[in-house]
Amino acid sequence: MVGAGPGDPELLTLKGLYALQKADVVLYDALASNALLDFAPAESLKVYVGKRAGKHSLRQEEIDFLLVQFAMSHGNVVRLKGGDPFVFGRGYEELDCARAFGIPVDIVPGISSSISVPALQGVPLTSRGVSESFWVLTGTTKSGKLSDDIRLAAQSTATLVILMGIRKLPQIMDLLAQNGKGDLPAMVIQNGSKPNENKAIGTVNTIVELAKEKEIGTPGIIVVGEVVGLHQQFIEEEQVAELLRTDIREVREETSDAQKLLRA
Amino acid sequence: MVGAGPGDPELLTLKGLYALQKADVVLYDALASNALLDFAPAESLKVYVGKRAGKHSLRQEEIDFLLVQFAMSHGNVVRLKGGDPFVFGRGYEELDCARAFGIPVDIVPGISSSISVPALQGVPLTSRGVSESFWVLTGTTKSGKLSDDIRLAAQSTATLVILMGIRKLPQIMDLLAQNGKGDLPAMVIQNGSKPNENKAIGTVNTIVELAKEKEIGTPGIIVVGEVVGLHQQFIEEEQVAELLRTDIREVREETSDAQKLLRA
Repeated sequence: MVGAGPGDPELLTLKGLYALQKADVVLYDALASNALLDFAPAESLKVYVGKRAGKHSLRQEEIDFLLVQFAMSHGNVVRLKGGDPFVFGRGYEELDCARAFGIPVDIVPGISSSISVPALQGVPLTSRGVSESFWVLTGTTKSGKLSDDIRLAAQSTATLVILMGIRKLPQIMDLLAQNGKGDLPAMVIQNGSKPNENKAIGTVNTIVELAKEKEIGTPGIIVVGEVVGLHQQFIEEEQVAELLRTDIREVREETSDAQKLLRA
Repeated sequence: MVGAGPGDPELLTLKGLYALQKADVVLYDALASNALLDFAPAESLKVYVGKRAGKHSLRQEEIDFLLVQFAMSHGNVVRLKGGDPFVFGRGYEELDCARAFGIPVDIVPGISSSISVPALQGVPLTSRGVSESFWVLTGTTKSGKLSDDIRLAAQSTATLVILMGIRKLPQIMDLLAQNGKGDLPAMVIQNGSKPNENKAIGTVNTIVELAKEKEIGTPGIIVVGEVVGLHQQFIEEEQVAELLRTDIREVREETSDAQKLLRA
């Protein structure tokens, strides 16, 4: 049971790499980058078990069953799951099924997009004096309704990270605005850590419109909290830093020119 | 800025490994395993900047300054931080300081103990029908008082993960019990993912006593929620699985003996 990380293949762990190198079968889903499959032996079997747009997707029970079947028929099975297998990954259900058949399972945690995607934007989920906690929620519950947890979270001071919530963005932001959080910084990131990353940064009041303009779709994550405000700062500082770097480069060039003149 | 993961050196990411291999200087703290330092070139400078029990520890500002100084004097600096740099790691402050000096910083997320330590115990922070969210908090705030977030969290249905809270375990469990959560499963893990891992599993009402019996100290994490109940199940299933494995082994031995007899 290997966590594949948020998308960038280099965000796999060493333990995950070693597991793939010894795999007889890899069962993977849509969120794992295909480049990760190259780490597995060429002769190993690679089986896609993720969702297919518009096509029949495998039910969870079918995946559980395949996992057990391949373990018995082929030996070493790597179940490669996007992010961390135990963060909304239904990894426990697969683990539970494998164990019920007496199949030993090693757990290799993965980099969860909930933490790493904001981090790669320079946004820490906690920061001394800004936020002392973070709450990770799903926008899409088993019943398809908006999670009750989100109603509670709207009243807290925690940084909120909402996975699988892009389709419910307007409802979630409405709920937050109703709780007096309209001006709180908010960020939406699609395909975080991948080359086709797409993001919008604003506030609870403005983010729905901004996400529409940027055509942000699934899969994506929503981050709401004062820490998102550190992102703007990051951009401004980057601009100042770039200016400083340009100055230093000019000074270096001038020095180098002066040295050449002295030598000549 | 590299996240070192929870302790097991193999839980470093490939990106983290590549960064270390190119390091001129590694600034590391107590939580990162020393085995990670072997990934850096032999001739690179390794500087410990973590806390020392009973001794003068470096202030955050001193670490920020060292980071900038080494980047300017030596080149490639890897700041190796336990877990993920942005989860209670004060990583943002260091990033902010480096950027203010115009030093470009790459962020390499790490496996956070908040998710991986429970996962390695077979405890998922979320599980369909059991828990739809998790809230990560600190037991120790800037002011030294119990975080207000914990008071709020005690009223929520989220799985609670409390880092740096071992010393405040009795107060935290009291607060949860006052909110009618005395029977909720709870778990305390010290040195998660390391060979010297030590843990106690019980309920909000029993965990303080159990942790005392097992002599659980810092650094450790506290997990409270229905999902912790999945751990017991895991143990029982492991026992059944072990029995099954024993049976299969016996059957195999008997088959092998029978084959030998046939051949002879």
